Amino acid sequence: MNPQVLIVMGSDNDLPTLAPAAKMLEKFGIAYEIDFSSAHRVPEKAGKLASEAAGRGIMAIIAAAGLAAHLPGVLASLTTVPVIGVPLSSATGDGLDALYSIVQMPAGIPVATVGINRAENAAILATQIIATSNPEIREKLNAYKNEMKEAVHEKSKALSALGYERYIKEKLKK
Amino acid sequence: MNPQVLIVMGSDNDLPTLAPAAKMLEKFGIAYEIDFSSAHRVPEKAGKLASEAAGRGIMAIIAAAGLAAHLPGVLASLTTVPVIGVPLSSATGDGLDALYSIVQMPAGIPVATVGINRAENAAILATQIIATSNPEIREKLNAYKNEMKEAVHEKSKALSALGYERYIKEKLKK
Amino acid sequence: MNPQVLIVMGSDNDLPTLAPAAKMLEKFGIAYEIDFSSAHRVPEKAGKLASEAAGRGIMAIIAAAGLAAHLPGVLASLTTVPVIGVPLSSATGDGLDALYSIVQMPAGIPVATVGINRAENAAILATQIIATSNPEIREKLNAYKNEMKEAVHEKSKALSALGYERYIKEKLKK
Amino acid sequence: MNPQVLIVMGSDNDLPTLAPAAKMLEKFGIAYEIDFSSAHRVPEKAGKLASEAAGRGIMAIIAAAGLAAHLPGVLASLTTVPVIGVPLSSATGDGLDALYSIVQMPAGIPVATVGINRAENAAILATQIIATSNPEIREKLNAYKNEMKEAVHEKSKALSALGYERYIKEKLKK
Amino acid sequence: MNPQVLIVMGSDNDLPTLAPAAKMLEKFGIAYEIDFSSAHRVPEKAGKLASEAAGRGIMAIIAAAGLAAHLPGVLASLTTVPVIGVPLSSATGDGLDALYSIVQMPAGIPVATVGINRAENAAILATQIIATSNPEIREKLNAYKNEMKEAVHEKSKALSALGYERYIKEKLKK
Amino acid sequence: MNPQVLIVMGSDNDLPTLAPAAKMLEKFGIAYEIDFSSAHRVPEKAGKLASEAAGRGIMAIIAAAGLAAHLPGVLASLTTVPVIGVPLSSATGDGLDALYSIVQMPAGIPVATVGINRAENAAILATQIIATSNPEIREKLNAYKNEMKEAVHEKSKALSALGYERYIKEKLKK
Amino acid sequence: MNPQVLIVMGSDNDLPTLAPAAKMLEKFGIAYEIDFSSAHRVPEKAGKLASEAAGRGIMAIIAAAGLAAHLPGVLASLTTVPVIGVPLSSATGDGLDALYSIVQMPAGIPVATVGINRAENAAILATQIIATSNPEIREKLNAYKNEMKEAVHEKSKALSALGYERYIKEKLKK
Amino acid sequence: MNPQVLIVMGSDNDLPTLAPAAKMLEKFGIAYEIDFSSAHRVPEKAGKLASEAAGRGIMAIIAAAGLAAHLPGVLASLTTVPVIGVPLSSATGDGLDALYSIVQMPAGIPVATVGINRAENAAILATQIIATSNPEIREKLNAYKNEMKEAVHEKSKALSALGYERYIKEKLKK
Repeated sequence: MNPQVLIVMGSDNDLPTLAPAAKMLEKFGIAYEIDFSSAHRVPEKAGKLASEAAGRGIMAIIAAAGLAAHLPGVLASLTTVPVIGVPLSSATGDGLDALYSIVQMPAGIPVATVGINRAENAAILATQIIATSNPEIREKLNAYKNEMKEAVHEKSKALSALGYERYIKEKLKK
Repeated sequence: MNPQVLIVMGSDNDLPTLAPAAKMLEKFGIAYEIDFSSAHRVPEKAGKLASEAAGRGIMAIIAAAGLAAHLPGVLASLTTVPVIGVPLSSATGDGLDALYSIVQMPAGIPVATVGINRAENAAILATQIIATSNPEIREKLNAYKNEMKEAVHEKSKALSALGYERYIKEKLKK
Repeated sequence: MNPQVLIVMGSDNDLPTLAPAAKMLEKFGIAYEIDFSSAHRVPEKAGKLASEAAGRGIMAIIAAAGLAAHLPGVLASLTTVPVIGVPLSSATGDGLDALYSIVQMPAGIPVATVGINRAENAAILATQIIATSNPEIREKLNAYKNEMKEAVHEKSKALSALGYERYIKEKLKK
Repeated sequence: MNPQVLIVMGSDNDLPTLAPAAKMLEKFGIAYEIDFSSAHRVPEKAGKLASEAAGRGIMAIIAAAGLAAHLPGVLASLTTVPVIGVPLSSATGDGLDALYSIVQMPAGIPVATVGINRAENAAILATQIIATSNPEIREKLNAYKNEMKEAVHEKSKALSALGYERYIKEKLKK
Repeated sequence: MNPQVLIVMGSDNDLPTLAPAAKMLEKFGIAYEIDFSSAHRVPEKAGKLASEAAGRGIMAIIAAAGLAAHLPGVLASLTTVPVIGVPLSSATGDGLDALYSIVQMPAGIPVATVGINRAENAAILATQIIATSNPEIREKLNAYKNEMKEAVHEKSKALSALGYERYIKEKLKK
Repeated sequence: MNPQVLIVMGSDNDLPTLAPAAKMLEKFGIAYEIDFSSAHRVPEKAGKLASEAAGRGIMAIIAAAGLAAHLPGVLASLTTVPVIGVPLSSATGDGLDALYSIVQMPAGIPVATVGINRAENAAILATQIIATSNPEIREKLNAYKNEMKEAVHEKSKALSALGYERYIKEKLKK
Repeated sequence: MNPQVLIVMGSDNDLPTLAPAAKMLEKFGIAYEIDFSSAHRVPEKAGKLASEAAGRGIMAIIAAAGLAAHLPGVLASLTTVPVIGVPLSSATGDGLDALYSIVQMPAGIPVATVGINRAENAAILATQIIATSNPEIREKLNAYKNEMKEAVHEKSKALSALGYERYIKEKLKK
Repeated sequence: MNPQVLIVMGSDNDLPTLAPAAKMLEKFGIAYEIDFSSAHRVPEKAGKLASEAAGRGIMAIIAAAGLAAHLPGVLASLTTVPVIGVPLSSATGDGLDALYSIVQMPAGIPVATVGINRAENAAILATQIIATSNPEIREKLNAYKNEMKEAVHEKSKALSALGYERYIKEKLKK
């Protein structure tokens, strides 16, 4: 099955942060491709990934980067496929640098930015984009929304049954 | 023609900032609906807009708000249609408050955030989402990308012909 | 005894941060209810909690959330009971995102915001609100203020007796 | 009629920003007293205002200040009446200094902080506090919430009738 | 010997951060008094400390606080003795909140602010103030400046002799 | 009369912002010298001003700069006279850059920092330093504190007499 | 004469801000080329400019951009010629977004960043780079440093002669 | 061989952060000198290092500092050799204070600023400056760019072969 989503990140150190995006797409049964790229170290490769995306049937590109995070914007400049940007925090900062570098794109080249380190949300957004023309995927998203509700209700019941002190001791110990 | 994009904003004062989104959608021939709503003043209406969106064939919702900008996230909680958030600057700030309030959504409910006051980019992103299942719209986006290139090349020629001092005087006077 | 204060938070991970609010209310003898809710995952439940609050005799709602912290504002939009917002710091930030998302409410729907992670202050503020029509609770607040004074005077005496180096060694070791 | 709300501010230059608080209280029929004070220039007066507030039947104190905005916290240290803090922006800043100086109170002495320059919200919050023991005022708050809804619906109708371009020209011209 | 410098802080948790101020004053042979106070928990005590300072021969007050750090400003409002403010970082932040709350004092009531957590610099500044009328202390300050120079020259020689890799291994191991 | 205070600033554009410092010193009868200098453009001159200050009887140096505001710190490195730093806002920013560049001095070389653009407070602080060994100046500072109090009381009376609407119209018109 | 410096900027609106760079290079007699480019709108052109720079004898590239300012970093990824980045402020912000987007480059691809809107400094830095192998240009830079010193001394004399009040009136009127 | 690059830093605690600059210069075969200095503790030494740099054949100065990081700017004021500034994060902050203190230099005295803690990039930038007149070094820089590309391609192959879960386990374990 051809990939519908492309996940690219600037450094292999970012892979653990991005893994939840892959897992979430697997959960929805979306085929994806995951790869390293870099706006600065391998600009030609980044360019190739972006400019071939539409022709390959890619419906969304998830691009993650930290610091002066140029990868999402550089990809967006070379394709009309929606690019979802994931700003990453880094050793020296909380990710505001990456957030600004991704979200503040100039007129004409949007990047759909999600929260700092929020890989799973990038995957859900990619799935929502696919769902705009795929009712089956829409159903899965609805089911996922219900799962989230159920999870809150379950926890709510447990809290009511246990009280907050036992809940903290029994449910939150790691 | 049924609207494919919904543009909602919290206050009529935001209308001039959002007008470029409507204009851009018109340029691409995308039918849209534009309305006021508010996560706080008319929560039921916001809820209705969001929960009926998928059934009405809406492919993307553009939601703009300033300050503690809850509208995009509240809509996103009630629909699986992609919600594009536009953070707005305000009288007392540069929009970092709105940016944080829109982009930092918790796991499970993404908002596709664009730059501060960047309504036209929200419209382009909505169009890119529609283009994932509409080759004709894809072509229009490609053409738009070429227009932008041409515009830079034109200006570049003018700068080369005039020199920077005359360019400033002749081309940038308002 | 019917609850006079409602404590709600978006995630069970926040429970240890909110526990001091419950403890403080217990100290003042205020009946409370504590529950999970979420503006985004269970919006209907959040709505129900808020819209029924006044009718149930709730005098104040304490709502805590991190990131794009919409819960306090969403509750405030559906009730005229005072909503006290507690911004929470998170893994990727110091809580400025949550602070902005809670305090910068638009005209007409205030949230009474306390400091980042300051659950005990939210409880004291709730108690102060109850005290506006309950002289007995007012007395307890006055007594608490005196306790705080006494505690400073005690420590002051210990510092004077021990000197700062022994004080650090004997009183601050953990 | 004895005042139920006290509005104090540090400088007469802040009066135009605070005027909407007075107007809002008048709208709800709440008696109030408005005065200048300053944690730094007239500390004794600030102390007197705070420590006599409960005895005079004051149900809420609205305190506004800019820069290193100590007035709300200093008042809160001397009373158990709820203190509502309004951070003010200033000539050299957007008010983050005042927001931090008001909201980040230490454990034990909360200030109920509203948004930057949001005097009307401070007044509504004061009214909500009074309403916890005054059903008539509760009714007025409910009516006000409905007014706000109506206003959005009216504007929504006008936008639908006029289209966004005429709306901007006819409704937003100043 | 009567104290010439008063060191006050809001919480005993701050004592380890403030200890270097005491040590530095001891080094210069300046008599000092160290105590806890709090603008919010014991406002009367803070007031007494400040208003009696000049009469007791205090030449400088060092006041440290975190969060909404009002202590230095409140002391400064009640005395004409120079107040040196030390903003403290806290569990939820890097101290920008305390810095703003201390340095942004309104016209008429300055606080001499030093860097975040910089207790030793507060002590040196207090010593410099005393030195304006005490040539002997001036000499000690000059000697201290020379010590600092010597220390840099020593380290410089060691680096030159060892090379950076051995320097890191031999001199910086903890 | 020999100058007791030295006012230096980096650029003549800063002179209007610094003028209130000169005026305030005149009010207290303190002799001062005012000059341009620059840590970067005339480092030797800055060095000379600082290293000769103590010998000339200077009791405090007021140094103002914007952007990467090095002047106060550079002066402080060359003298034991207290240096009071005034961070200045600039065309591209609110002065946080200058504040950080002045206040965050390393261990050993304090700068007594006042608020952004707060020249008058720098002058009052200089006066307070002089007053530590000059009872006559102390008296003037006490009188000034009383003046400030009186001014608040006057305005308070006017507000009470006029009401806030007339006060705004009659007292605040510019 | 072949250009030694390339000045590129993302938008013609930035030309007035960049003009001082061109003027400064003219002052030092450095040949330059000035052009529009954009990392996002004309990525191929940006690529061509960068990859041909070394071969054309370009010694430094000055690249200016605002918002998510990718141009300097994208050029730097394609050349070993030093790239000097000029972050620009914009309608919605003070330029911190552009500063972060330019300066926080990942390991391996530096951008020599100057201050926000500081085009003249970019030109001086380019000139300093050229001067590392051109003693004649070095001399011009030394002369410029002396000019700056002279200018401060002149102003200093004028201030001394006129006093600050007349200086403000006569020298700073615009 | 005479040093071509000078590495200076304010404190020996910064040495581990700066070591990668030395290593990178060694990799490119650039002779360098590494030393401690301080704008504040040994201003004369800093002055000497800067003013003698050009005469000694130094082509670039790398200066690193944290907090109110004056060292790079102070060196730049005394030489026409390009000064590369490395802002350092510190115990109490993420380095924005140092970044502002280094990059926001006034007109006339640029500092070529690199990212926070980015010592290796400072070394590469110094090498790029040397390469402007040294084709052999230019070749080494080109080779380094290719190495970086190869490294990304290698990792990309490994990811493709292993899948992301095994890659995380086998390649990223520390």
